[in-house]
Amino acid sequence: MEHMSVPHFLGVLVVMLGAAKLGGALAKAVGQPSVLGELVAGVFLGASVLGLVDPKVEAIHLLAELGVVILLFAIGLETDLTKLLKVGGASAAVAVAGVVLPFAMGYGVCRVMGLPNLAAIMAGATLTATSVGITARVLSDLGRLQEPESQVVLGAAVIDDIVGLIILTVVVGLTRGESVTPGGVAMTTGIAFGFLVAILVLGSFVVPPLFRLAGRIDLPGTATILAVMLAFGLAWLADRAGSALIIGAFAAGILLARTPQAHEVEKGVTVLGHFFVPLFFISVGAAVDVRVFNPLDSANHQTLLLGGLLIAVAVASKFAAGYAPFWFKGKKSVIGVGMIPRGEVGLIFAQMGLASGVLDAGLFGAVTLMVMVTTFIAPPLLKALFPAKHPGQPPAEPEGIENLVSMP
Amino acid sequence: MEHMSVPHFLGVLVVMLGAAKLGGALAKAVGQPSVLGELVAGVFLGASVLGLVDPKVEAIHLLAELGVVILLFAIGLETDLTKLLKVGGASAAVAVAGVVLPFAMGYGVCRVMGLPNLAAIMAGATLTATSVGITARVLSDLGRLQEPESQVVLGAAVIDDIVGLIILTVVVGLTRGESVTPGGVAMTTGIAFGFLVAILVLGSFVVPPLFRLAGRIDLPGTATILAVMLAFGLAWLADRAGSALIIGAFAAGILLARTPQAHEVEKGVTVLGHFFVPLFFISVGAAVDVRVFNPLDSANHQTLLLGGLLIAVAVASKFAAGYAPFWFKGKKSVIGVGMIPRGEVGLIFAQMGLASGVLDAGLFGAVTLMVMVTTFIAPPLLKALFPAKHPGQPPAEPEGIENLVSMP
Repeated sequence: MEHMSVPHFLGVLVVMLGAAKLGGALAKAVGQPSVLGELVAGVFLGASVLGLVDPKVEAIHLLAELGVVILLFAIGLETDLTKLLKVGGASAAVAVAGVVLPFAMGYGVCRVMGLPNLAAIMAGATLTATSVGITARVLSDLGRLQEPESQVVLGAAVIDDIVGLIILTVVVGLTRGESVTPGGVAMTTGIAFGFLVAILVLGSFVVPPLFRLAGRIDLPGTATILAVMLAFGLAWLADRAGSALIIGAFAAGILLARTPQAHEVEKGVTVLGHFFVPLFFISVGAAVDVRVFNPLDSANHQTLLLGGLLIAVAVASKFAAGYAPFWFKGKKSVIGVGMIPRGEVGLIFAQMGLASGVLDAGLFGAVTLMVMVTTFIAPPLLKALFPAKHPGQPPAEPEGIENLVSMP
Repeated sequence: MEHMSVPHFLGVLVVMLGAAKLGGALAKAVGQPSVLGELVAGVFLGASVLGLVDPKVEAIHLLAELGVVILLFAIGLETDLTKLLKVGGASAAVAVAGVVLPFAMGYGVCRVMGLPNLAAIMAGATLTATSVGITARVLSDLGRLQEPESQVVLGAAVIDDIVGLIILTVVVGLTRGESVTPGGVAMTTGIAFGFLVAILVLGSFVVPPLFRLAGRIDLPGTATILAVMLAFGLAWLADRAGSALIIGAFAAGILLARTPQAHEVEKGVTVLGHFFVPLFFISVGAAVDVRVFNPLDSANHQTLLLGGLLIAVAVASKFAAGYAPFWFKGKKSVIGVGMIPRGEVGLIFAQMGLASGVLDAGLFGAVTLMVMVTTFIAPPLLKALFPAKHPGQPPAEPEGIENLVSMP
């Protein structure tokens, strides 16, 4: 863990924020979602190119995580629970198919390529979890967050994150040589889903009166800071309860969306998001090591071949999962494409696999390549399938969440 | 350096923000500036009472420093350079007297108490630097930031910070056994003051056109993030140039105060400040170890006696310095009292002294006691001498900087 002085920290933040602004503005100039520009800017700042940003440094890592927590909180604030539940069946179908298909196909491909059982399981697992942050951000960039297709994707990505967490628990158990019982898996599953339901039910009784009370405190900034405390607090609680941080933050947003302070909170959280959210996307980009993709180095050929196969599996399987809710009337292709980016969740899996020795450097490189390509192709694909609703028009409400996420 | 997990980090932030809110609201309820409540809340959270917040953990330390950088930036945004320069002579007189008197008196008292020469120099040095953050925050809490007295205090505290930096450089040289030449001291002085002048002169040509240009980028949040980048960037540059971080942040605020985006930037920075600034004051409070002040433990008697003497010197010398600009027409008592709090700067000196072995645990405890008492008595004293301008009335503009600093 590298020690960081205050001036160095300030310098790194200036570089990260500046690169995010520049990358976002350039992406927008060529008609792409700004998040793509932030990711590319992050790759340039990372260890394998300029070496200016190391996302593994604790302070940077923690700020980036605040960014994804605040992003999911902001997305939750924009989410209408009734709307989300209305497409709940479709979301669940997409999520289940989007876990089973990639895992099975990824495992199969790895076994055919002659990899050991545990490595194939790990690689299959990295293919399962969609990065809700990237897709949500792109849908917001396009002003499409309220469409039914987006709601299905959002719901599926959240369920998917919970399922990913369960798989992670199981896989970690396997790598440690522990025996995994169906009862244990069922318990992990129950806790993860039970947390979300319990929070939403309990919270809908507790949170609105709490914020009505807080509304009487005549002090500026109170609502936003209380909202941030709720988001961080539920994120912490979600983790303690065996669920995922971002599930807690998302639940906090959904709960606050129905309070009278929702608009004030949204304005404040948007400003905080302008600061924190780009730090997350820059960090995701900076974690990519571009050196393992050099095709001129023959040592990389096996990695590139395996990576290519994993990319094909990753894209095809999630795209197919989009068609699982056969009854859903809407653009199913949008749903499938929205589920493609694997982002940080896949990288966490891959890093755990590398650290535990289950994945060797080559397989790790292949998984990284898959994560990177799926993350980078989804924004332009989504934009092509699902063009921005009011192209060229300024957003109706310049201080809403849409702008948090469309900021370059 | 303790490693921190993301959930733990979120939990600590919730505790810090919640304690700051609660402490600030309670202080306000008993008619005190809310910053006092935040400091007391910090003491409760610190290692010596509840042990929930360790301000030495890197991530907490870095966020707290972002808080003081953002606070000084916000104060700079509220500062009219012409007004500040108008009272420049008075500020300089207060600053010089406010360094010479405390140092001479502190050194004298320590020598009389039988302390070695180097320890007496170090203790004298800790008495010199006023904590501009605390005074500025209190003056803002009282809605008095624009008064001539406040401008004198602000100017003096900034000069004082630069002088404190020079003294620190010299003292560090002495503790390392280096020879300190008048030429070296003159150079340090020249760099420190030269930086501020150079930045203000160069910046007044470069910054307004830059922000006019940036104003054409039609993307929400851009102005605030560019402003934050300027503040962090100049803070970094100030440090590299041998000046102080907060001088750079303050200069950035002064420069931006004259751009057309000043109002938008102020709103955004206020929201960021609501999040970051309390983390700084909680951290200052949490650094206090209350155990060394237990009068029932006879081991603490020497510390308490020496601490009492240092407090008397600290209060009397800065109060007297307030009368140095004899030509200034205004409440000179307010100026003197405004210069009393030593805060984090004094603690930095003391910690360096302890680490280098120049201060023993007893003298360190006495210095900590002095820092704590001066920090805690200034807010109520200032409020008594300089009552809030519109008591009981809501602020005219609820989104201005005044509210950043009056937030509980």
